[in-house]
Amino acid sequence: MSSTGLPDSTGLPDLNELAAQLTPNALVTDADVIAAHSSDRALFSPVGSALALVRATCVEDVQATVRFAAKHAIPIIPSGARTGLSGGINALDGSILLSVAKMDRILEVNTLDGTVTVEPGVINLDLKNHLAEFNLSYPPDPGSVAISTVGGNVATNAGGMCCVKYGVTRDFVRSLKVVTADGEVTTVGRNTAKGVAGFDLAQLFIGSEGTLGVIVEVTLRTVPKLADPLTSVALFSDPVHAARTVTDYLGRGATPSLLEYMDGGTIEAVNAYQNFGLPSGAGAMLIVQSDGSGSMTRAQEDLELFQQVAQDNGATDVMYSDDPRDSESLVAARRAVAPANEKLAHSRGGGELVDDVCVPRGRLAEFFERQAQIAQKFPDILVIACGHAGDGNMHPNVIFDAGDPVSTQHAKEAFGMIMQAGLDLGGTITGEHGVGVLKAEWLARELSPSAQKMHVAIKQALDPQGIFSPGKMLSYLG
Amino acid sequence: MSSTGLPDSTGLPDLNELAAQLTPNALVTDADVIAAHSSDRALFSPVGSALALVRATCVEDVQATVRFAAKHAIPIIPSGARTGLSGGINALDGSILLSVAKMDRILEVNTLDGTVTVEPGVINLDLKNHLAEFNLSYPPDPGSVAISTVGGNVATNAGGMCCVKYGVTRDFVRSLKVVTADGEVTTVGRNTAKGVAGFDLAQLFIGSEGTLGVIVEVTLRTVPKLADPLTSVALFSDPVHAARTVTDYLGRGATPSLLEYMDGGTIEAVNAYQNFGLPSGAGAMLIVQSDGSGSMTRAQEDLELFQQVAQDNGATDVMYSDDPRDSESLVAARRAVAPANEKLAHSRGGGELVDDVCVPRGRLAEFFERQAQIAQKFPDILVIACGHAGDGNMHPNVIFDAGDPVSTQHAKEAFGMIMQAGLDLGGTITGEHGVGVLKAEWLARELSPSAQKMHVAIKQALDPQGIFSPGKMLSYLG
Repeated sequence: MSSTGLPDSTGLPDLNELAAQLTPNALVTDADVIAAHSSDRALFSPVGSALALVRATCVEDVQATVRFAAKHAIPIIPSGARTGLSGGINALDGSILLSVAKMDRILEVNTLDGTVTVEPGVINLDLKNHLAEFNLSYPPDPGSVAISTVGGNVATNAGGMCCVKYGVTRDFVRSLKVVTADGEVTTVGRNTAKGVAGFDLAQLFIGSEGTLGVIVEVTLRTVPKLADPLTSVALFSDPVHAARTVTDYLGRGATPSLLEYMDGGTIEAVNAYQNFGLPSGAGAMLIVQSDGSGSMTRAQEDLELFQQVAQDNGATDVMYSDDPRDSESLVAARRAVAPANEKLAHSRGGGELVDDVCVPRGRLAEFFERQAQIAQKFPDILVIACGHAGDGNMHPNVIFDAGDPVSTQHAKEAFGMIMQAGLDLGGTITGEHGVGVLKAEWLARELSPSAQKMHVAIKQALDPQGIFSPGKMLSYLG
Repeated sequence: MSSTGLPDSTGLPDLNELAAQLTPNALVTDADVIAAHSSDRALFSPVGSALALVRATCVEDVQATVRFAAKHAIPIIPSGARTGLSGGINALDGSILLSVAKMDRILEVNTLDGTVTVEPGVINLDLKNHLAEFNLSYPPDPGSVAISTVGGNVATNAGGMCCVKYGVTRDFVRSLKVVTADGEVTTVGRNTAKGVAGFDLAQLFIGSEGTLGVIVEVTLRTVPKLADPLTSVALFSDPVHAARTVTDYLGRGATPSLLEYMDGGTIEAVNAYQNFGLPSGAGAMLIVQSDGSGSMTRAQEDLELFQQVAQDNGATDVMYSDDPRDSESLVAARRAVAPANEKLAHSRGGGELVDDVCVPRGRLAEFFERQAQIAQKFPDILVIACGHAGDGNMHPNVIFDAGDPVSTQHAKEAFGMIMQAGLDLGGTITGEHGVGVLKAEWLARELSPSAQKMHVAIKQALDPQGIFSPGKMLSYLG
């Protein structure tokens, strides 16, 4: 047993004892329903057999479940909409799955303070739509915006396309209500704009992937409704010229609200999926948007600068649109990468691994060179990439024949080589998808022995029995 | 002994053993020099007698000092420029003072990535000036900007006037190099724009006031050089109308880069100190600036909206200036509150307590009402306030006769009542000055028992011997 694992439970606990403390019907023992709740969208991440599923509808359900798990020393795995890509909520044998997806109320929009308080199960896009009625925005927009929950976004510190200007989920969290390992409910963080009273424990819970407690309420900062952006697109013969455009453009003081990248293979995949009007035949493409922080003049200046910089860096074509429909179509094309790659994978044997490394953006060009070398080494698989270029956050997609053991093995190796490239270039193994089980072993390679020790010590301090999500992201730390 | 304290040391350690491991002359045992380094600027915060002062010039000096302290189980108190206001770096009996003020090099400005890496002792303003040569800005601007260090700013998560738009120190830290309790040096956080590999330990160190380790290197995010702002001023008959202006203005989507408040007593104090051209006779004043995120048009719109909202809320006078010298003069007047209040205090017996509470900005009006009640209760002392109105972060100044025990007692009571008002209104006992020893007892009132337990457990996990700054902010937690 590792220092972050859970002692073996002795015998099966009596689930009736738990059911008696929960809202009626919150406890589910139907094997099919449990199975349907036992995994997220990650490949190559083991899925165990859970004892039960609790569909919590209130904080008390969460508390009762945590106390039951603590009493019987059994693992508990908090989850939201299960849209993760790293297996972080996959079932463990003998565990209780604790879903907060049904706790999905928007509790308060405070227009005086510019905050919103929600239950963890509210869908990100539903929150955005609700806030729009108040002329407010909540910028974080992970690719899963239409299907993932705010609680899950907080637990994984989700990112998205807005991050280049507006930051990640972490930057918008004011405070959290969490249920701790002893079943207590407490507030971490604060509801004020500033505050330095003690450690910022909210920051510690953000991105902790269910290993420290269960998030049962979230208070977020909102911003005034964002202006509609203008859009420009530049095409390049190869990824390296696109990378140089990114650094030159941002280095000259631009503040785009979106700066996305697709390579030639990704453009082809999207074109084959649906007609968004994307040009074909390019080696790489950048999509840039600017909302000018509300100033159309500033937005136009931002895009003119982009066009200039792209041309200086050998762009083969630069397009500009002030038609909002064109802009929407381009962003829709970028958002379609996920289903487009799925379709492509389907035609090539069904295997797809979505990687997620982040490098300092000044090293993107080197990263693309490494990616090309990896693709060359494994001609039987495809390695194509899109990503949040302005943040240096790339999503290389490894597409392989899942029925062919050699192809599958090559895909796994390529996936690992991509992570290694991220580390070699001063980056990280995950920019926004999280560690889960998929990258747990890699986390131990990224962190120094001293940082690993701190992780284990903090886990031990806040969850001494190790009931929260054992065997996940911390499981390889020394 | 509390769980966060240090076991009693047995006998005096041999300082020669430490000196032998340090850069020559880094160890100082001269009593006068030690005394000069033994306190910050807080009142009513005990100052003990330190064993020695280490003026570290490199990471190895810090490591050697920490290892020596760990071996002999003696307290170690990291410090920067000692400009704090809460006694957080005050000497304890038998402690070693560890100053990193001499580690003041700017190590790298990375214009590709928009980051800067510095040693902890660099002065905030020196960093700003250096970055200006690269057309970059580092927004955080605590009142102490000209004299405080970046390391100290990180250790206390310093704020300032920019926060209403640009956030606090926390929002700009990418990664830290820290020396941990076992003398290891490790990096926490990361140098990429995004990243979710493991707990964000950098966030835990930010604002931990020297209780978890010693910050020996800081990598900060920079932003493109900020545009010069436009300025407007509104006068009101009383603070409550000013508060309503703040909430209405921000509620209508404005994004000022500065939104400061001074009450009538503070204006008088500043006028008596120096002629900045401040109007006299008003009950409250708001100073607002907008940089329009680089758009002059947007800045003008922001200020026009402010003037409109101020008039709607009964402003007695509204002024606008597009002359940069006038703007600078107004901000200089706001920055002069500290020396002006010192002068005022000098004329009234020398006592001055600077409080620092933060409330949700929607409750500022109630806070001003509470402040008026407190002032009324103690007519022998003065309670006047300035603050960062846009953040709800107020600095009521309690001015009293330090030679008069009754006046002194009243000042302490008023100070406490101000903190209590902050808590009662859903706020915090400190928005930016920190807890130190001055507010340690109040921290225990602000935090729930469960949050207190988490603080103690984390402290124990990362500093099991309790060598870092014992007897400070955590000392009243259960």
